[in-house]
Amino acid sequence: MAQAPEFPELAPHRAALRDFLAGQVDAFEPELRPMVRDVLAHPGKLLRPTLAFASAFDGATPSPEVVRGAAVVELVHLATLVHDDVLDGADQRHGSDTPNRTHGAHAAILFGDALFAHALVLAAELPTPDLCRLVATGAREVCSGEVCQTFSRGQADLAMADYRRHIRLKTAELFVAACRAGSQLSGMPAGSPHQEGCAAFALALGIAYQIYDDLADMLLSSASAGKTLGTDVASGKLTLPALLERERSGPEAVRRLLAGEDPRAVIAPATWRACLDQLESEIAAAERALAPLASAPGTPLLLRLTTFLRAAAAKVGAQAPR
Amino acid sequence: MAQAPEFPELAPHRAALRDFLAGQVDAFEPELRPMVRDVLAHPGKLLRPTLAFASAFDGATPSPEVVRGAAVVELVHLATLVHDDVLDGADQRHGSDTPNRTHGAHAAILFGDALFAHALVLAAELPTPDLCRLVATGAREVCSGEVCQTFSRGQADLAMADYRRHIRLKTAELFVAACRAGSQLSGMPAGSPHQEGCAAFALALGIAYQIYDDLADMLLSSASAGKTLGTDVASGKLTLPALLERERSGPEAVRRLLAGEDPRAVIAPATWRACLDQLESEIAAAERALAPLASAPGTPLLLRLTTFLRAAAAKVGAQAPR
Repeated sequence: MAQAPEFPELAPHRAALRDFLAGQVDAFEPELRPMVRDVLAHPGKLLRPTLAFASAFDGATPSPEVVRGAAVVELVHLATLVHDDVLDGADQRHGSDTPNRTHGAHAAILFGDALFAHALVLAAELPTPDLCRLVATGAREVCSGEVCQTFSRGQADLAMADYRRHIRLKTAELFVAACRAGSQLSGMPAGSPHQEGCAAFALALGIAYQIYDDLADMLLSSASAGKTLGTDVASGKLTLPALLERERSGPEAVRRLLAGEDPRAVIAPATWRACLDQLESEIAAAERALAPLASAPGTPLLLRLTTFLRAAAAKVGAQAPR
Repeated sequence: MAQAPEFPELAPHRAALRDFLAGQVDAFEPELRPMVRDVLAHPGKLLRPTLAFASAFDGATPSPEVVRGAAVVELVHLATLVHDDVLDGADQRHGSDTPNRTHGAHAAILFGDALFAHALVLAAELPTPDLCRLVATGAREVCSGEVCQTFSRGQADLAMADYRRHIRLKTAELFVAACRAGSQLSGMPAGSPHQEGCAAFALALGIAYQIYDDLADMLLSSASAGKTLGTDVASGKLTLPALLERERSGPEAVRRLLAGEDPRAVIAPATWRACLDQLESEIAAAERALAPLASAPGTPLLLRLTTFLRAAAAKVGAQAPR
C-alpha cells in the first residue's frame, strides 16, 4: 500500500486538516518550529485522519472538533514515526530528511516527545476528556506493541497469539482510536452501533494492514514498496509467514530464517497461501463489521480502504513462490 | 538538594501515592510490567507529587483525585527521566539500573513513550480535561526546553534571556503543572488566588532549583551531590555562572570554559556571588508569591521547600572560590 486510495469527498476535510496543522507551528518554541514545519511538509498517506473523517462523514464539511480529532491522531502518529526513525537510524521518510538526520538522535527523541505532548494539549482543549482518553490509550498501545516486538526479536518460540496481540497493539489500536475519535466528535458516542461498528472495522483493518506490511517486507522489491525490505527477519522479527511455516513444517524453518536464509527458499508455497488467506479473512471481517452501518454516508469511504488493501494484497501475493 | 526535606504531614499522601502507582503495573502489557516495577521501585525525591499535595493540603487525607493528579505528574516526570537516561547513556538512577541499562536504548525509548501515554490515560479518566491539559502542557514545555538546550550547546553567544527561558521550560513548568493540578483537583480553579499563588511560587521555585542545580554541577564534589558533576560545560552547556562571567569580563571567559578550563579558575569570585544572589532572589520571589496564602494549611509545607533550597544553596556557596 505504497499509495493510498483517492478520497475526493474528503478534499475539504484534508484542506481543513492541513490548515489546522499549519496553524500549530507557532504553538511551539521558536527553536522547534523548523522541526515542526519539516514533519508537516511531507505528509504520508494520512490514513488515520482519513479513518477519523470517514467515521464522522455526513456529506458536509467537517466540524472544527472532527478536524481537531483528525489532527491529534495524525500528530500522535507523526511523533511515533520521529521515534521510529531514531530507533531505525533512518535518514529518509516520505522522500525527505528525518529529524534524526537533520538534528541528531538526541534532539529528535525530545522533539518526538514534545510533538506527542502537543497532540494531547490540543485534545485537552475540548470540553470533555474523551479525545484525550482515546488518543492517549491508542498511543500507549502503539508504544507497548513496539516494546513487545523489540523483546520478542529472535525468539524462535514466539506464540502466534502473541504475534497477533503485538500487531493489534502496534498498528490496529491507533486505527481504532482514529475511528472512535471521528465517531465520538460527530456525536456518535461509545456504545452506539455507529462507533462500535467503526471500531470493529478499524481493529480488523489494522490487523490486516500489518499482516500485509509484514508480507510485503518479505515479498516486494524495495522499489515497489517505497522502503527498505527484508529488514524484519534480518533484525530477528518473526512475522506471520515464519510462524505459519513453523506450524506446518516445524521449528527448523524459523532457525533457518533467523540464520539469514532467503524467506522465499524457506517458506513453502502452501504457507504463503495460508498467509494470504488470513489477510483476506481479516479484510472480510472489517467489511462485515460495517454491514450494520450500510446506510451511513461514510461507509463507502471506509470500504474503499478494504478494496484498496485487497488489491495491494493481490499484488504481493503474485510475488509469492508457488 | 541531594536529599529532600521531611514532610511528616504528607505521610498518608505518600502512602496513597505509592499504592496508586503500584496499582498501575497491571494496566501495562505483561512484557512491560517488569520495567514499570523497576522505575517505581526506586522513587526519587517525589518533589512534584509533594508540590501537588501541598497545593491541595487541607490537613485531612487526600482525595482520590488529588492522589491521581500527583501520580500523573510523577509518571510524566519518570517518563522524561527514562528518556534522559537514554540520551545521557546513564546506567544508574536512584541507585538502581536504568531501563536503558537493563533493556537497551531501543526498548527504553518506547517504554518512556508508553509510560507518558499511560499518565495521560490516567488523567483522561477524570470527568474534565483539566488535568490532561495541565500535564500535557507541562510535558511539552519540559521536552521543548530540553530541545532548546540541546541546540544551544557550545553557542558562546547564548542570550541570558534564552538561558532563563530554557530553564523555565525544562524545570519550572512541570513544577507549575504540579501545583496547578493540586489546586485544581482540590477545588481551587485557575484564576483563584490560591491556584495563581501556588503557580507563581512553583515558577520561581523551579527556576531557583535549576539555577541551584547548574551551580552545584560546577561547585560540588561528586560524592556530596550524588551524581557526576562538571558535565554541563564539558557537553557545551552554558549556564548562569558562564553567562554572568561573560557579562562581567567579556567573551574570552566563555571561550576558555568551552575549551575545558576549570570553571573555578575562569569564573571570578564576584561572579559566583552574583549567581548566589540571583538564586536567593528567586527563592525570595517564591516566598513572596505565597504571602497572600499565609493562612492556607499547605503554605508551611511549600515554605519548607524554599528553606531547604536556601540551606542547600549556602552549602554550594561555601564551595565557591572567594
